[in-house]
Amino acid sequence: MPRSTLAGIAKEAGVSVSTVSKVLHHRSDVSSTTRARIQRLLEQHGYSERHRPTDPAPLRGGLIDFVINELDSPWAVELIRGAEEALHGVGMGMVVSATHGRTKRARQWLDSLATRPTRGAILVVPELTTAQHEELRRLGIPFALVAPIDEPAPGVPWVGATNWPGGLAATRHLVELGHRRVAVISGPARRLTSRARVDGYRSALDEAGLPYDGELVRYGDFTHGLAHRHALELLQLPDRPTAIFAGSDHQALGTYRAAATLGLRVPEDVSVVGFDDLPFADWVTPRLTTVRTPLAEMTALAARMVLQLLAGERPETTRAEVATELIVRESTAPR
Amino acid sequence: MPRSTLAGIAKEAGVSVSTVSKVLHHRSDVSSTTRARIQRLLEQHGYSERHRPTDPAPLRGGLIDFVINELDSPWAVELIRGAEEALHGVGMGMVVSATHGRTKRARQWLDSLATRPTRGAILVVPELTTAQHEELRRLGIPFALVAPIDEPAPGVPWVGATNWPGGLAATRHLVELGHRRVAVISGPARRLTSRARVDGYRSALDEAGLPYDGELVRYGDFTHGLAHRHALELLQLPDRPTAIFAGSDHQALGTYRAAATLGLRVPEDVSVVGFDDLPFADWVTPRLTTVRTPLAEMTALAARMVLQLLAGERPETTRAEVATELIVRESTAPR
Repeated sequence: MPRSTLAGIAKEAGVSVSTVSKVLHHRSDVSSTTRARIQRLLEQHGYSERHRPTDPAPLRGGLIDFVINELDSPWAVELIRGAEEALHGVGMGMVVSATHGRTKRARQWLDSLATRPTRGAILVVPELTTAQHEELRRLGIPFALVAPIDEPAPGVPWVGATNWPGGLAATRHLVELGHRRVAVISGPARRLTSRARVDGYRSALDEAGLPYDGELVRYGDFTHGLAHRHALELLQLPDRPTAIFAGSDHQALGTYRAAATLGLRVPEDVSVVGFDDLPFADWVTPRLTTVRTPLAEMTALAARMVLQLLAGERPETTRAEVATELIVRESTAPR
Repeated sequence: MPRSTLAGIAKEAGVSVSTVSKVLHHRSDVSSTTRARIQRLLEQHGYSERHRPTDPAPLRGGLIDFVINELDSPWAVELIRGAEEALHGVGMGMVVSATHGRTKRARQWLDSLATRPTRGAILVVPELTTAQHEELRRLGIPFALVAPIDEPAPGVPWVGATNWPGGLAATRHLVELGHRRVAVISGPARRLTSRARVDGYRSALDEAGLPYDGELVRYGDFTHGLAHRHALELLQLPDRPTAIFAGSDHQALGTYRAAATLGLRVPEDVSVVGFDDLPFADWVTPRLTTVRTPLAEMTALAARMVLQLLAGERPETTRAEVATELIVRESTAPR
């Protein structure tokens, strides 16, 4: 039988070209019945040498793409480390790309996939649209989101961190130290991660019978600068807070600065809790009490999900929050 | 003419198998005469469809490997950013690997190259031996070293930072502020980078007519911990230094901590200068005066060298130190 085009084979099998392509490229997300039917046709049409009929291609030597929105923070290196370690363990290489918050970059990244043998992807908020997720699925490239900003669509695997319990633990710690006026400087209000932390904060106040004062709740952008301005305002209120829960370690540094500017000491005059536990948190003065986000564990788990999907296995979970943990150091003290 | 093995073709052309392989894989480091002779033989032996006779393969869509010894510091993300940006600009992907200071990992990385279409490599002190550099050359994979620890062998392209002028600028700044007892906590003594900084320090003392006191010169490991211990010792000397030049921003944080432990204020009681200008340097309290090392520029320049070598062009330079720059902030004050 003469060699035919993939389109011809797809027509004959009654499936889409992309399904034929998936079978040809050893993707696992095709039902075994359909796979068998297409494989028969591929063999008849002379594609037989290009694939083994039973299993997907071995992962060793393959590539996984790691796409991140920004390469500008110690955050990024922790995330890269976890994924690199997991992929190295199975002999795969990791292609790192940054989208810099630009949709054009996300588009360019998607287009670049055609040029290399990428098998899967780990996506750290790289500004991809739902339509682009669908495109990845059509290409037969399994992926997992890390630290998603919004609730991912059903069926999209993701790994986050437990933000609500993190906010709860940070605020409980401050309340237990005797603080009654606790402020929070969180990330952007539109992000679920920010809101979950603030809601954890609120629950801790509730369970201690403390009132929620909207004036003490600020949303920012996870950076030093805006946190610095918020903290300057908060610490100059007539009835100023004695403790500030910052939404990131960077925001905590902005808060330290604001305190220093006003001649206030941390933790004697104001207690500060951060969020992330980046390496510098253990080395600033005073050493920062913070909520550890297991960034490397998050990407390692995302890598595992992608590898399992590639191998045709069912992942233990495809939607998980890795637990945060309060690390008490020197920036918090009894009221 | 029947299809022959590459070994047969190599024998017929009077060259090594690796030279034949280079021509087959569109590497550029083969003389045009040899290339033409081998191409004729390859075509005669049925390899003609696999390459175009005139130019090396296009770079767009190709891969460059980026290998780094550790993924544990904000350093790493700056280095990755510069290379990613440069390679994205020419449509190439970047595979990131970490060797964690282990020779086994370096070996595994070299072996992994056979499994993917890597065209070149950027190496940030990944514990490769000179023999392994030679192996890369045999594979036809051009590479450049970034921030090499020792003097690279002749012919090996590299990009560093101007460490000696950095040490000179940092120390001059302190001397100009009136400091007469200036200590230095540098990196490992075996590293040329550390020694260059200390020599710059020494020159600044010399030109000011200040004596060099060996007791004030400490070598460490670029981390907080050892710097903290050195600084504790230095600041408890009977005739203690009034300024400390630290070999990295991390070491500067260790020095801040030591000062705080002893009840000394920065900069009122002791001035501190760092080295690197990592993002947190601008946000710690007090904001750190430091010598900026253009990490992203360094890897961008290394990427350019590799791309030029791949394209068969002569790089503008293959051995360069990118200039460091003193950034004066708040951690230094007049004596």
